[in-house]
Amino acid sequence: MKHRPFPHGIPDECFTRGKVPMTGAEVRAVSLSKLALNVDSIVYDIGAGTGSVTVEAALTAGAGMVYAIERKPAAQALIRENIKKFGIANSRLVTGEAPGCLSPLPAPDRVFIGGSGGNLREIIEFIDHRLDKRGRVVMNAVTVESVYNGILLLEEKGYQVGAVNVSCSRLRKTGEFHMWQAGSPVTVIWGVKEDE
Amino acid sequence: MKHRPFPHGIPDECFTRGKVPMTGAEVRAVSLSKLALNVDSIVYDIGAGTGSVTVEAALTAGAGMVYAIERKPAAQALIRENIKKFGIANSRLVTGEAPGCLSPLPAPDRVFIGGSGGNLREIIEFIDHRLDKRGRVVMNAVTVESVYNGILLLEEKGYQVGAVNVSCSRLRKTGEFHMWQAGSPVTVIWGVKEDE
Amino acid sequence: MKHRPFPHGIPDECFTRGKVPMTGAEVRAVSLSKLALNVDSIVYDIGAGTGSVTVEAALTAGAGMVYAIERKPAAQALIRENIKKFGIANSRLVTGEAPGCLSPLPAPDRVFIGGSGGNLREIIEFIDHRLDKRGRVVMNAVTVESVYNGILLLEEKGYQVGAVNVSCSRLRKTGEFHMWQAGSPVTVIWGVKEDE
Amino acid sequence: MKHRPFPHGIPDECFTRGKVPMTGAEVRAVSLSKLALNVDSIVYDIGAGTGSVTVEAALTAGAGMVYAIERKPAAQALIRENIKKFGIANSRLVTGEAPGCLSPLPAPDRVFIGGSGGNLREIIEFIDHRLDKRGRVVMNAVTVESVYNGILLLEEKGYQVGAVNVSCSRLRKTGEFHMWQAGSPVTVIWGVKEDE
Repeated sequence: MKHRPFPHGIPDECFTRGKVPMTGAEVRAVSLSKLALNVDSIVYDIGAGTGSVTVEAALTAGAGMVYAIERKPAAQALIRENIKKFGIANSRLVTGEAPGCLSPLPAPDRVFIGGSGGNLREIIEFIDHRLDKRGRVVMNAVTVESVYNGILLLEEKGYQVGAVNVSCSRLRKTGEFHMWQAGSPVTVIWGVKEDE
Repeated sequence: MKHRPFPHGIPDECFTRGKVPMTGAEVRAVSLSKLALNVDSIVYDIGAGTGSVTVEAALTAGAGMVYAIERKPAAQALIRENIKKFGIANSRLVTGEAPGCLSPLPAPDRVFIGGSGGNLREIIEFIDHRLDKRGRVVMNAVTVESVYNGILLLEEKGYQVGAVNVSCSRLRKTGEFHMWQAGSPVTVIWGVKEDE
Repeated sequence: MKHRPFPHGIPDECFTRGKVPMTGAEVRAVSLSKLALNVDSIVYDIGAGTGSVTVEAALTAGAGMVYAIERKPAAQALIRENIKKFGIANSRLVTGEAPGCLSPLPAPDRVFIGGSGGNLREIIEFIDHRLDKRGRVVMNAVTVESVYNGILLLEEKGYQVGAVNVSCSRLRKTGEFHMWQAGSPVTVIWGVKEDE
Repeated sequence: MKHRPFPHGIPDECFTRGKVPMTGAEVRAVSLSKLALNVDSIVYDIGAGTGSVTVEAALTAGAGMVYAIERKPAAQALIRENIKKFGIANSRLVTGEAPGCLSPLPAPDRVFIGGSGGNLREIIEFIDHRLDKRGRVVMNAVTVESVYNGILLLEEKGYQVGAVNVSCSRLRKTGEFHMWQAGSPVTVIWGVKEDE
């Protein structure tokens, strides 16, 4: 195993972005920490967007594999570009809609859901059958509906559930003064398959 | 280099804590991501507290070295215990007050200031002379004074400065309902010695 | 009509409190502003707690009437005490559980729901039949469940719905420094019976 | 004294706004509650912007007088328009820069500082000489500098100081889902001239 080729914690502006929404660096850091990756984790990144979570997860799980699941062509192009830009070898782009497109993949021990395209229940039910004991699911929820459903669905399936609502305001200089610009709050929800 | 022996992202409850205040897991994740550790980074963790940042930094910078600086005996004992608990070999506890006790140490490329004991200006001035080009300082500020002084001191010294105010509310179950318990906001400030 | 006998905006510490949970002054101010009281409003304060909303609403709607609905004896005693303390004449305490105990009361044009005791759907359905055109319902929601259900129930009944999640951190002096102590976030939800 | 002609708590969209920045309704409600207006208060609204605080203060202090201080012509026009729109008789627009333009005015018992144009120290020193015993100053601070200086200046002058950092995220419907849109945090600082 080689040294990690990039510093830990990649700033947003280092990713190629286009107009695809991207999890901000801070929420990405919190989400990845809740994912508790092992070096050899098999990870699904569902609704991979720009691929920023895929890239950082693949760097941390350097002996594992990260599947970036994305149905939108514009985002797929960005994921390919960012995987290339960061020289990630242990990642595959899976085009299509979850959970349907997940069937051919090896069973994961870590699942990140950045976006569920309205299929949250189906995705969680599918994953639940394939996730390792002590496997983990982490979600980013930004709607009233996904906060409520994410927490309740994971509890219903018997997961140990935690969640944290993260609000970040970033410093912005205007003239000689320093102001704060609020980012919209994201709820990071995680579930562990057995008692921790 | 061996595989990382622990999953990335250690929950608060895995550290031995006592009554020493500890950076919460989410702010620790954000702070470590802003620190942008390399595998071989030389890190000072000033005001190391329980050693939670030291432990996570040492796991990420597995071929580097993390110096945990702490002046309070109760916290020193916890740092020793947590370094042992997580089997960290690439960390040293430095007892004493910063910046005085920093003189014998090798020059760092990453500095985390969890607490400054009222010596923020002296610490930043000392560090500034020893920090590598493209080195980074990251601070956690929880007072009106340290937010203001941290940002202005780093700018005064010519650093590229960023900051993010992080507010986290954690899910707590009470009976059949899910509530949110707010943690106090922490401002994570970072400075990079040259233009990024 | 006499002059308002107290300044607008009563600090928390002026109310007799006991151990009954009380809406903090800031959330009370936001909630009252969303309630958009008229001088002659007929108000229900459901789950009145200490009576702090009742008192402030009664001072603003000086020619109206505020019904403080509360089922818990300890809280009823506090409401009586606070109504007396602030010399409120235009308020009545209604002991019992909503919506059952609301039947004998005159129809309201403003309803505040500080706590629903698990009867949120029943309360909203009852109120909906009696609320004036252009009447308003305002709720304080602190659980994942009440945020979700409050918003969706009011929309289901055809209300114009707005909501704001309010997080307040209060300044606290520790030694010579100023810190921030976070209060738990409260979602203030409001519904207006017809298009505004 | 007549009945209050408008409901308490005026929504943002009811004010004529142009491109002048306006305190959001929630922060306005909190600020007005900390101002603790009496019915006959003499109020300075310094940096009055659109006049939204002036209008709401004048409605609450119906037997008092509110001076809207504003140096920018575009904002002056909006203040005139909003004063007219809400039929406010107990308010005067004062054009010019504070504290210079404050000299001819009667002494206030309540001062709101929405913007200080870089003259915060001069304004607080001027006001301090004229403010009634038990008078109150309330500030909205949005920069690192004004939070720090506002709190420390008021303490230096011997005021009892409180502050609350208010973060509001507003509900926004996108398609069938409900999201939260963060507003930038505002620190509401208040000082009372004698022990409360």
